[in-house]
Amino acid sequence: MTAPLRVAVAGLGTVGAGVLQILESRGRPIAARCGRPLVVTAVSARDRHKSRPVDVSTLRWFDDPVAMAADPEVDVVLELIGGSEGVAKAVTEAAIGAGHHVITANKALLAVHGAELARAAEAAGVFLAYEAAVAGGIPIIKGLREGLAANDISRVYGILNGTSNYILTSMRETGREFDEVLAEAQTLGYAEADPGFDIDGVDAAHKLAILTALAFGCEVDFDGVYIEGIREISALDIAFANELGYRIKLLGIATQEEDGIEQRVHPCLVPEGTPIAHVDGVFNAVVAEGDSVGRFLAEGRGAGAGPTASAVVADLIDIARGNCLPTFAIPATELRRSPALTSERHVGSQYIRVMVVDRPGVIADIAAALRDCAISVEALLQHGRSTTEAVPVVITTHETTGAAMDKALRQIADLDTVLEPPRRIRIESL
Amino acid sequence: MTAPLRVAVAGLGTVGAGVLQILESRGRPIAARCGRPLVVTAVSARDRHKSRPVDVSTLRWFDDPVAMAADPEVDVVLELIGGSEGVAKAVTEAAIGAGHHVITANKALLAVHGAELARAAEAAGVFLAYEAAVAGGIPIIKGLREGLAANDISRVYGILNGTSNYILTSMRETGREFDEVLAEAQTLGYAEADPGFDIDGVDAAHKLAILTALAFGCEVDFDGVYIEGIREISALDIAFANELGYRIKLLGIATQEEDGIEQRVHPCLVPEGTPIAHVDGVFNAVVAEGDSVGRFLAEGRGAGAGPTASAVVADLIDIARGNCLPTFAIPATELRRSPALTSERHVGSQYIRVMVVDRPGVIADIAAALRDCAISVEALLQHGRSTTEAVPVVITTHETTGAAMDKALRQIADLDTVLEPPRRIRIESL
Repeated sequence: MTAPLRVAVAGLGTVGAGVLQILESRGRPIAARCGRPLVVTAVSARDRHKSRPVDVSTLRWFDDPVAMAADPEVDVVLELIGGSEGVAKAVTEAAIGAGHHVITANKALLAVHGAELARAAEAAGVFLAYEAAVAGGIPIIKGLREGLAANDISRVYGILNGTSNYILTSMRETGREFDEVLAEAQTLGYAEADPGFDIDGVDAAHKLAILTALAFGCEVDFDGVYIEGIREISALDIAFANELGYRIKLLGIATQEEDGIEQRVHPCLVPEGTPIAHVDGVFNAVVAEGDSVGRFLAEGRGAGAGPTASAVVADLIDIARGNCLPTFAIPATELRRSPALTSERHVGSQYIRVMVVDRPGVIADIAAALRDCAISVEALLQHGRSTTEAVPVVITTHETTGAAMDKALRQIADLDTVLEPPRRIRIESL
Repeated sequence: MTAPLRVAVAGLGTVGAGVLQILESRGRPIAARCGRPLVVTAVSARDRHKSRPVDVSTLRWFDDPVAMAADPEVDVVLELIGGSEGVAKAVTEAAIGAGHHVITANKALLAVHGAELARAAEAAGVFLAYEAAVAGGIPIIKGLREGLAANDISRVYGILNGTSNYILTSMRETGREFDEVLAEAQTLGYAEADPGFDIDGVDAAHKLAILTALAFGCEVDFDGVYIEGIREISALDIAFANELGYRIKLLGIATQEEDGIEQRVHPCLVPEGTPIAHVDGVFNAVVAEGDSVGRFLAEGRGAGAGPTASAVVADLIDIARGNCLPTFAIPATELRRSPALTSERHVGSQYIRVMVVDRPGVIADIAAALRDCAISVEALLQHGRSTTEAVPVVITTHETTGAAMDKALRQIADLDTVLEPPRRIRIESL
């Protein structure tokens, strides 16, 4: 056995406590894997005296996590604070500056500052590891960085936010509306009091930007991600999707095109026969398509103390064993800068739902708007009949550009017989 | 860049040629990942002059792969010959003896000689890597060895043979019988002329034995695997399974129990709602259940030049980067020897199908046999009615031991009204 790996933990929330618990309960088998013990020597959190599931009283305590990150008696710093700016960034920079490896669960930090932090870490000769930042229970960072390293990856996509997937699954199973299911998810602890990051797609976009960089060997480009959340999905859409043989999922999708990279996070209709359609509840899934390997799918829990701590400890074991790689698999200085392709030029089929007054000529008007934008109709459904209330007309189209559909939807919204802004959900043939 | 990694390839079949193609077409990005080039310097195969998709005329040729494996001008030997004994074993031992790393796609070799080869490799200070040996398109060896390294794994299971999964999927989709679908699979190249290894469960058992050792930290114990193939599955069973809400899959399942390890390969009824029920065609899937991570599932292609070569090259990249681990994650000398638990003591629900003469008292006789063995019936179906031909009676049971069911099936087989040996398929609640 060689010298112990000295670990400093910044942030003692559920993940930090989870890491300490794993290191305590599985110290022996983990040391057998590493050839050396992992020892937590320092911790820092906001409140020293808070009750925690693990005893930290015997560890060196730092009120200032930045000072801890720079401490010479440390080999690895775990940044488990969160947020793209402020303390989390300062801790990461201080650790790198002091020549310490960093493990972070912080997707926002990497999505916004990934390229710059990767360069700094590699210049300092340290490892910036982040398995826990994307779908904690799925070792997909290692999978893309090492397991599929022989492949040219053309597309990577997935269900990257457990809260949104839980809500969509629950809506489908119960037929209830978004607001009601969200409230229940909050009660159950599956959604936060302020759920915006999750349900508006930002969290998924952070993760997608990281996966994109790793899969395609380009700089992280969070600003290049088109983002749309799930607030507008109604029980009606879920029911129509079912009828048409689809499930609605919030997907993050990144595609490598000849002239750039397309990154999108939005609700999708996915055919019921695809594996990802069956990833339900709080589970996440990531699919990578490689030239040699074909389609690879991995599914697991995306969040929670156990899965996230499992990912952090896997990174620790890598570092203890000396398996340290460039942040995004190739040297940060060699990462390409690729143009971001906009959603307007994305080509695909679409689903639209229009709430109309049910009177003769309505369908003709909508069809004319689509025709004027050169959009071809694949299917049309009109179920309800009412002369007093709005009734839904649902149309699925053949392939068209995002721009053409934007224009058609503006025209349709302007029709007298159309009572609400039309809804659009993209159809993905995965 | 440091010195190139010198690679010798023993065996130039589809996988060997696939590896050469990847190294040729993706040499630059792979070198960027490794910090050094990977260079094939020597090859060996049975026929030097055979037409191949890659040009090997400029490489050093060895008629004797064992001599090549021991050649001093080599860093890594790829054993892509196959078979648990003979040349493949000699090549592996010669390479280890000469202090070279070995990468093998050979599940039979590792299943039978894994413990001994692991000890030899570690004593020699070389890496014995085998990502390609189990479900090539799924980096599950790396996943278990590194990605889930923080976890105590309680169960690992999966669809480990693409040929069998293709046949079962096709039987379900077309309603045809086993023999007909097998013949078609052979025509399409999804099954070999001699399909025994695949359809009798031996190939899956080889892979399961390897996964078991890696997941639980014990010595490979291929002899401890209970093996049953899919030859006896009939179109009737597939139809009844569908009606009962199940799919039939050939699974390999390993469970860590207090008093030993249970390893089984046999057809299973899996509930339609489980993710693995939807892994169809030639795809493989592996599920690992860990104490921290919960359920992790990975799905991909199990065989073929591309996926297998992708796995071999991933191992090469690891070696080029110096990421060399013990064969089964912990030192071979520390691997436990665990007693193998028999299928007789396995507790689970079962499906049985009995072909009977449809006359009064038949069901009572069968029910009495089950009662005598303390087996409780969950459901009973009898569809056809015929006084001249055999009609099927299908029963699903509550949990019982394998031994109790063995006894009941013997009693049932002895009944005058029972015309064929009863069929039994285990039900897995995954």
